[in-house]
Amino acid sequence: MGGLAFTLDVILLLFLCFSLPVPTLHLTPKRLPSPPGKPFRIALFADLHFGEDAWTDWGPRQDLNSLRVMSSVLDRELPDFVVYLGDVVTANNVIVANASSYWDMALSPSRSRGIPFSSVFGNHDDAAFQWPLEWFSSPGIPPIRCPASDTSDSLVEEGCSFKGTGRLQLMKAETVRNQLSYSSGGPRELWPSISNYILELCKSDHPQSSIAYLYFLDSGGGSYPEILSKAQVEWFRSKSREINPDLSVPELIFWHIPSKAYEKVAPVPGSRVSKPCVGSINIEKVAPQEAEEGFMDLLGNRSSVKAIFVGHNHGLDWCCPYNKLWLCYARHTGYGGYGDWPRGARIVEINQKPFSIKSWVRMEDGDVHSEVVLSS
Amino acid sequence: MGGLAFTLDVILLLFLCFSLPVPTLHLTPKRLPSPPGKPFRIALFADLHFGEDAWTDWGPRQDLNSLRVMSSVLDRELPDFVVYLGDVVTANNVIVANASSYWDMALSPSRSRGIPFSSVFGNHDDAAFQWPLEWFSSPGIPPIRCPASDTSDSLVEEGCSFKGTGRLQLMKAETVRNQLSYSSGGPRELWPSISNYILELCKSDHPQSSIAYLYFLDSGGGSYPEILSKAQVEWFRSKSREINPDLSVPELIFWHIPSKAYEKVAPVPGSRVSKPCVGSINIEKVAPQEAEEGFMDLLGNRSSVKAIFVGHNHGLDWCCPYNKLWLCYARHTGYGGYGDWPRGARIVEINQKPFSIKSWVRMEDGDVHSEVVLSS
Repeated sequence: MGGLAFTLDVILLLFLCFSLPVPTLHLTPKRLPSPPGKPFRIALFADLHFGEDAWTDWGPRQDLNSLRVMSSVLDRELPDFVVYLGDVVTANNVIVANASSYWDMALSPSRSRGIPFSSVFGNHDDAAFQWPLEWFSSPGIPPIRCPASDTSDSLVEEGCSFKGTGRLQLMKAETVRNQLSYSSGGPRELWPSISNYILELCKSDHPQSSIAYLYFLDSGGGSYPEILSKAQVEWFRSKSREINPDLSVPELIFWHIPSKAYEKVAPVPGSRVSKPCVGSINIEKVAPQEAEEGFMDLLGNRSSVKAIFVGHNHGLDWCCPYNKLWLCYARHTGYGGYGDWPRGARIVEINQKPFSIKSWVRMEDGDVHSEVVLSS
Repeated sequence: MGGLAFTLDVILLLFLCFSLPVPTLHLTPKRLPSPPGKPFRIALFADLHFGEDAWTDWGPRQDLNSLRVMSSVLDRELPDFVVYLGDVVTANNVIVANASSYWDMALSPSRSRGIPFSSVFGNHDDAAFQWPLEWFSSPGIPPIRCPASDTSDSLVEEGCSFKGTGRLQLMKAETVRNQLSYSSGGPRELWPSISNYILELCKSDHPQSSIAYLYFLDSGGGSYPEILSKAQVEWFRSKSREINPDLSVPELIFWHIPSKAYEKVAPVPGSRVSKPCVGSINIEKVAPQEAEEGFMDLLGNRSSVKAIFVGHNHGLDWCCPYNKLWLCYARHTGYGGYGDWPRGARIVEINQKPFSIKSWVRMEDGDVHSEVVLSS
């Protein structure tokens, strides 16, 4: 099974580099194809939390607000690629049989603009439904769309147990329905961790020439612990050695839940973000993964790795150096989820000549702040 | 749907009273049919926790031990009926697609002896699988029986997401497979609470003459909060008024998680159980339901209700008076679940002439203790 997964990975890389206009991936007529050497711009949409409190007016309103944030960012930044950085849905609030419909809603701003995208899972994405305690008092459970009593028991069970839509099911729905999706279910031996895959950014006029590798990892949570497993560490070690043996190609890493290393570099919660860190909000403590199985040792000693990007903490948006790489938070993009700090999105821009990686935060209202160079 | 549920309830009562040899329900040739007036004996099997740690040697060994406890109790007490009082399985440890196989194992000692039974759900029965954190370190996830990689994605998803087997699915499997099962899925309007039903104990020679009503309720937990809902209170109020309007028939109540009233009558944790309470272990604090929606007010003011029986707290086996009824714990029967106090089962015996309800605890080793009269 490992062999099969390897083959699929390689096919994915080849497909990306030879078959698609990278880095000018956007397909809508609104934008002009960029010439080779044009910066490649990535927008990170973190913690959208679609489907939250869907049984109240508040919930659907927040989903609309989140769509507005994404639209604002996309129309101002015109990114070449979008990364959905986990907690796309608040599955623990989703009372429909399949949360893919909410997931699909979250993808729609990118899809409608023809912007390719990919996603990783967060801790809320496949969580089981949490019944609000107050529903068991009068006036009771609100009307829920559930198979009617005249359907078979098995349908009632499947449709109304609200056990959450599994990671595989969500991933399958995204990739089957969306030609623009670059997500992948990852190798079977990493299960129950799913969103583990690699994208190679390469020049459209020289497909063999890599600009960067983008690694996407599933940091768990929801149906299983919040962790990057030893198996994922070994998978990364093996794959990165294979595709980038001399560390000549810069590498960027994307997952949802900060590793414990974020705690080491974090500014004191509540304090202003100051050098060497760069950011605008620092309201809360880092909420890290449950354990560290060696991923940070591996990345910290790998000179080609330039930065890690995570979401999860809505009240943090800083980047701080850690050894020779940067540990970055995205910016809370969704109106779902805790916290009412103004919404925005972290932008990452990869320039080829001279090579540089820059990042900044674009707010819903158009404001830009916290620019930082991640390649130095 | 309420009308349909009502009809089904009535059919169940009629079926019980007219079609089956109650109270002499045991069908194996080892026992003689009891004449009218023979005491009706019920064994309560609480917190069996089948399927716990199934990936170690320890788990299956405990399941065997639990089977031995039940066999010992059944062969010494020769009960007419068995109540499985919740936490029949530790679903949060069950790594097979359908936990009904473990449930079925728990029923087997009663079934093999031809003893009829029924069950209520506990908080562990439909819990989702909890992945042990250590599985994400080396040496990783143990071999798990899961659909092979050549099966379809949907099978992989359903078979290996380990989201727990739903209450409806468990109940359906029990009742469809077992002619001896008196369990029922309960009225649809009480969903997600499932094991809500009533049994009427009546004289085999005078089926119209009721001896007692046995009420079974789903006290939640697992996939939804640990609670008896306002809807359940109203259902009980309505049904009990209908079937026992003049309170002339004694009533017994069975559910899994103690209500908050248990806290009010509990002996100080760690102290000896003394009058008016009767019992042998009092090791821990009552772990009650999350909220009280009026059930105890209703029962406390209903003179026909003689006792409530719960499990959940493995370190408690007492009965204490509360208003005019008794609040009783069963006895931890299973080798699964926390605590290593000696295992046993609470027995409840209903005598017709003169009417009395007695109870005691029968231990695995044959010892009997804590006899109490619940009808006085």
